[in-house]
Amino acid sequence: LTTDFGTEDWFVGAMKGVILGLAPKATVVDITHDIPAGDIRSGAFALAAACRCFPKGTIHVAVIDPGVGSRRNAIAVRMRNQIFVGPDNGVLSLALAGEEIVAAHRLENEKYFRLPVSRTFHGRDVFAPVAAHLSRGVALARMGPKVGEFVKLGLPAARVTKNGIHGEIIYLDRFGNAFTNITAELLPQAGQPVARVLRKGKRLCRVAEFYQAVSAGQPVAVIGSSGHLEIAVNGGNAASKLRLRIGDAIDLTV
Amino acid sequence: LTTDFGTEDWFVGAMKGVILGLAPKATVVDITHDIPAGDIRSGAFALAAACRCFPKGTIHVAVIDPGVGSRRNAIAVRMRNQIFVGPDNGVLSLALAGEEIVAAHRLENEKYFRLPVSRTFHGRDVFAPVAAHLSRGVALARMGPKVGEFVKLGLPAARVTKNGIHGEIIYLDRFGNAFTNITAELLPQAGQPVARVLRKGKRLCRVAEFYQAVSAGQPVAVIGSSGHLEIAVNGGNAASKLRLRIGDAIDLTV
Amino acid sequence: LTTDFGTEDWFVGAMKGVILGLAPKATVVDITHDIPAGDIRSGAFALAAACRCFPKGTIHVAVIDPGVGSRRNAIAVRMRNQIFVGPDNGVLSLALAGEEIVAAHRLENEKYFRLPVSRTFHGRDVFAPVAAHLSRGVALARMGPKVGEFVKLGLPAARVTKNGIHGEIIYLDRFGNAFTNITAELLPQAGQPVARVLRKGKRLCRVAEFYQAVSAGQPVAVIGSSGHLEIAVNGGNAASKLRLRIGDAIDLTV
Repeated sequence: LTTDFGTEDWFVGAMKGVILGLAPKATVVDITHDIPAGDIRSGAFALAAACRCFPKGTIHVAVIDPGVGSRRNAIAVRMRNQIFVGPDNGVLSLALAGEEIVAAHRLENEKYFRLPVSRTFHGRDVFAPVAAHLSRGVALARMGPKVGEFVKLGLPAARVTKNGIHGEIIYLDRFGNAFTNITAELLPQAGQPVARVLRKGKRLCRVAEFYQAVSAGQPVAVIGSSGHLEIAVNGGNAASKLRLRIGDAIDLTV
Repeated sequence: LTTDFGTEDWFVGAMKGVILGLAPKATVVDITHDIPAGDIRSGAFALAAACRCFPKGTIHVAVIDPGVGSRRNAIAVRMRNQIFVGPDNGVLSLALAGEEIVAAHRLENEKYFRLPVSRTFHGRDVFAPVAAHLSRGVALARMGPKVGEFVKLGLPAARVTKNGIHGEIIYLDRFGNAFTNITAELLPQAGQPVARVLRKGKRLCRVAEFYQAVSAGQPVAVIGSSGHLEIAVNGGNAASKLRLRIGDAIDLTV
Repeated sequence: LTTDFGTEDWFVGAMKGVILGLAPKATVVDITHDIPAGDIRSGAFALAAACRCFPKGTIHVAVIDPGVGSRRNAIAVRMRNQIFVGPDNGVLSLALAGEEIVAAHRLENEKYFRLPVSRTFHGRDVFAPVAAHLSRGVALARMGPKVGEFVKLGLPAARVTKNGIHGEIIYLDRFGNAFTNITAELLPQAGQPVARVLRKGKRLCRVAEFYQAVSAGQPVAVIGSSGHLEIAVNGGNAASKLRLRIGDAIDLTV
């Protein structure tokens, strides 16, 4: 489960109750419920970063759904190894990118919903019961009509320039580490101590192999665990110390 | 589990350790642990809203227990489909309301406690082990003497007036949505766009079917997923934007 | 699992995905993920307080690991009833204290890691998979060479003085209760209403058996559920009301 429901209220608990009522042997795992309310992009990034750690057969339910109750579609998408369930608003799209889609269907068959479906809580009434039924082997095709296209997030792409790589900050984690859209594949020289990181054109730090390569309190960029270049402060909070924000331009020069 | 223990410390983990030591096959589900410290009313509301999503045979443990260590009773209550365990301070009472109570017993039999029982953590030493034993089939009657009466929360009731319905705000969720005590049953005209919502006598918004029925940033009232009239702001935080507080009078006029 | 990863991001979810991929029948339990970032001492205290509530056979994974990626060791330690897995930086040491260590090994065998091992997320790539393999019966000795010594936290010890007991505050919980290093064993007179608690030499409160022994809003010290003398305010937040901080000297005089 990946949602923006938070853990202060009963919303996630209600989803789990519904799932376990239909699929008592399911193992329900939280990725996070603390995606900022309505922040489809952060939810999509978290889901994409986590989903490859989960085993074959996992059904991911992602509910960052500011359009709940309106006309947006609900979908379930089968990839080779996992199924993704959620609103068709882009929240699934980063997890789906780059792999072959086996089948995708709209969720329209009320037989697999919790009825009556509320207008404001499809996490409980649509996505949770559909995922539970899928986990018990109900065919994806029974959920509704096939869909060909679905909403993709227009995440900015990093690009190679004559001086290096130009990208931007796309996610801030709870430690204040800033994830950029510059990934390991773009960075054959990653780890070379001469690589410099610029933020808005001004020198920020160098690239190293781990946080402790610089003194405590100093900034550094590393290829983090998700394969993205992260800007960090050794033992500190880079986002607050360096005033980093999502969207800040980051340049890498060698 | 529904508690005010938070997730910063080890308290919930300790409860789960105790439960799984006694009932290794139990599935333990968190409703929430972020009820404001000692806020019996919010805990009771969250439990009542969530419990109907859980399957037959669920044992709910609710520990919002500011009187722990004093003379308040601990109880377990069997309803037709579920069992509720917690202090007898009202935290169970909204979940118990409106359904037939099959049996209710005080928790006094130390055989089913974790000994020695601390003065400050009955969640770990009384409620968790009792729930674990109940889940394994120990009879409720073995926990202690039968009880007839228990503490009920005096939650304010909404009432029909000559102009509409008079109620109040009883819960604020993490999105800033304000739940009122006006429920769907009281509201035959719910969804009619002419229904107006007043806060302290001043016009606040209209009733609609879902959040997006109004422009982004505008207030709206909807019958939410728990069956209560909720005041929301489309894409925003109604509690902060409209300065809503628990106890604010809400009137509905058609 | 006990970590400082927080629940805002996908880090804990990724660990669980890895564990369940290797050990699908494992029951994964959160102690807490909200240890302050890098606070080895609070993590060690939470783990030590919780671990004795867990059944025989439990494998504890504690990842408060500010030195991840540097040369610190990773270890797994078998006690009589449980196994502890984490970085060798002291985070396990309070849980290990006072019991016999059956075996301790460094984690060096990449066969039991998730490859390639990232530089920044050994929770996912080292500790989670090692714990999963151990839960399936892989011998501890296969993880790497035996270790004799490991890092112990220099937690201050309380001591008996001619006037009473001298200790200090070592942990603040989410309710604002201040845990001291004065434990029940040092306190034969605990619970005697004449015992006075001094903070930095000035009278703070008396010792009682439970919070409600004093009026609402008044400070009191009780032997809490972890066996430590806690300073609390009945119905309030002692840490903020009394401006208590970790390290504050606390004296007990009878």
